[in-house]
Amino acid sequence: MSNSSLVQIGILTASDRAASGEYEDLSGPEIENFLNEILSSPTSFHRKLVPDNIDDISDALMHLSDDLGCALVLTTGGTGPAPRDVTPEATKAVCERVLPGFGERMRSISLKYVPTAILSRQIAGTRGSCLIVNLPGSPRSIRETLEELFPSIPYCVDLIGGPYISTKSERMDAFRPPHARRE
Amino acid sequence: MSNSSLVQIGILTASDRAASGEYEDLSGPEIENFLNEILSSPTSFHRKLVPDNIDDISDALMHLSDDLGCALVLTTGGTGPAPRDVTPEATKAVCERVLPGFGERMRSISLKYVPTAILSRQIAGTRGSCLIVNLPGSPRSIRETLEELFPSIPYCVDLIGGPYISTKSERMDAFRPPHARRE
Amino acid sequence: MSNSSLVQIGILTASDRAASGEYEDLSGPEIENFLNEILSSPTSFHRKLVPDNIDDISDALMHLSDDLGCALVLTTGGTGPAPRDVTPEATKAVCERVLPGFGERMRSISLKYVPTAILSRQIAGTRGSCLIVNLPGSPRSIRETLEELFPSIPYCVDLIGGPYISTKSERMDAFRPPHARRE
Repeated sequence: MSNSSLVQIGILTASDRAASGEYEDLSGPEIENFLNEILSSPTSFHRKLVPDNIDDISDALMHLSDDLGCALVLTTGGTGPAPRDVTPEATKAVCERVLPGFGERMRSISLKYVPTAILSRQIAGTRGSCLIVNLPGSPRSIRETLEELFPSIPYCVDLIGGPYISTKSERMDAFRPPHARRE
Repeated sequence: MSNSSLVQIGILTASDRAASGEYEDLSGPEIENFLNEILSSPTSFHRKLVPDNIDDISDALMHLSDDLGCALVLTTGGTGPAPRDVTPEATKAVCERVLPGFGERMRSISLKYVPTAILSRQIAGTRGSCLIVNLPGSPRSIRETLEELFPSIPYCVDLIGGPYISTKSERMDAFRPPHARRE
Repeated sequence: MSNSSLVQIGILTASDRAASGEYEDLSGPEIENFLNEILSSPTSFHRKLVPDNIDDISDALMHLSDDLGCALVLTTGGTGPAPRDVTPEATKAVCERVLPGFGERMRSISLKYVPTAILSRQIAGTRGSCLIVNLPGSPRSIRETLEELFPSIPYCVDLIGGPYISTKSERMDAFRPPHARRE
């Protein structure tokens, strides 16, 4: 299988403490675990871990999108109201478009579990044919969010000109309108 | 009845393929059908069909609002994440204010039907005393959205200085607080 | 008890008619009543009443935040679509960050009571370690909103570096993750 037939997916953890080695990044690996559970498309993952600086995050997002050709980049960390939380700002800075429905939906999903879900400033946007989505910080919240959010992602990637991402049908159905489905 | 006692409503379809004649615009007519079903105010409709270009859409919105005196302009098409989808950008460019609750609510309504509702970037805003609302692209989604959204529209038009829009009470109740109701 | 151990809370009513004495401001006092019902932290309230001018509202917000050291400022009035409604603009002008989940959540709460909740442009944001939240205009809506929204506020104030706000546990539980709770 040639490289170009693999779906390239970036996973970016923004965390001062994980980047300094103060604690282990459990969130980035959890994103990869989840995607391995649900995806049937052959995939190549690119994991990055950076401190909570706008420039570091933006540079990492551009590298994943532009140099590594990622169709999808999922971030974790840095979306709260604290001053060091800058992932949404860094994401907005590199995206041509924000898709407001993602942030609304992610907060709405998390609100089923914790009322402080409204504190999250998570966004999603597109940079060329790459979709960038800010996930929550904790492994548990990541899983809760992706379980409900992911079915909308493959068709979004289709629409922005990315590769066809398929899921294991016994585990999760990606939603596409009939005309967009492939056998 | 003089012209000035008619409520002027604009309906704008943004679609490259419908504008080029590649297929028939079914969405603009569906908006008009729906409004005819529910409105009791005497109304004059102004339909426009333009390709997915920001300038064409913005120019049409300004013409409907400023020259034709529309109190309400409903658009359809061009709100997805694809590069040619530019209706929200054109809408934002001509509105003095965005009303974020409309976009949130429309995505929330559509989410009952399809998970990919979150991909829509629909907005609404005001230009002087004209309310502009981006509806979904498909006739079915237009109807689903307006059925739940329209009851809030007449009072919004009141608040921005537009005409009193009334609905057929046996079909739909427009919501107004008691002090804003007329016999 | 020294002054510095009191939680400073600002309450700002934006209303041309209340500011001119045309009618009594019932909304500011209702916010204070509600907070007295639920808070166990010793609190000092600072109430202001200004007309619906951006500069008056912005100046009052900055005074409450910067000069009086408020950890939380709750506004009421001026969030609709009418031309004189400018509270969200004034709030955005003085905030470094907007927290979009608050506006979404407040509209969603009010939508249980009135479909025109979507007309509200309420926002919340942070200015340094002060959280500013635009509440609805009517005393009834204020109470409906705070009952569901307030549990998320104390932890937000923690995260932006403000004082620890505690509630009467028999009346309302402020939500904090375990690591953020104090005895």
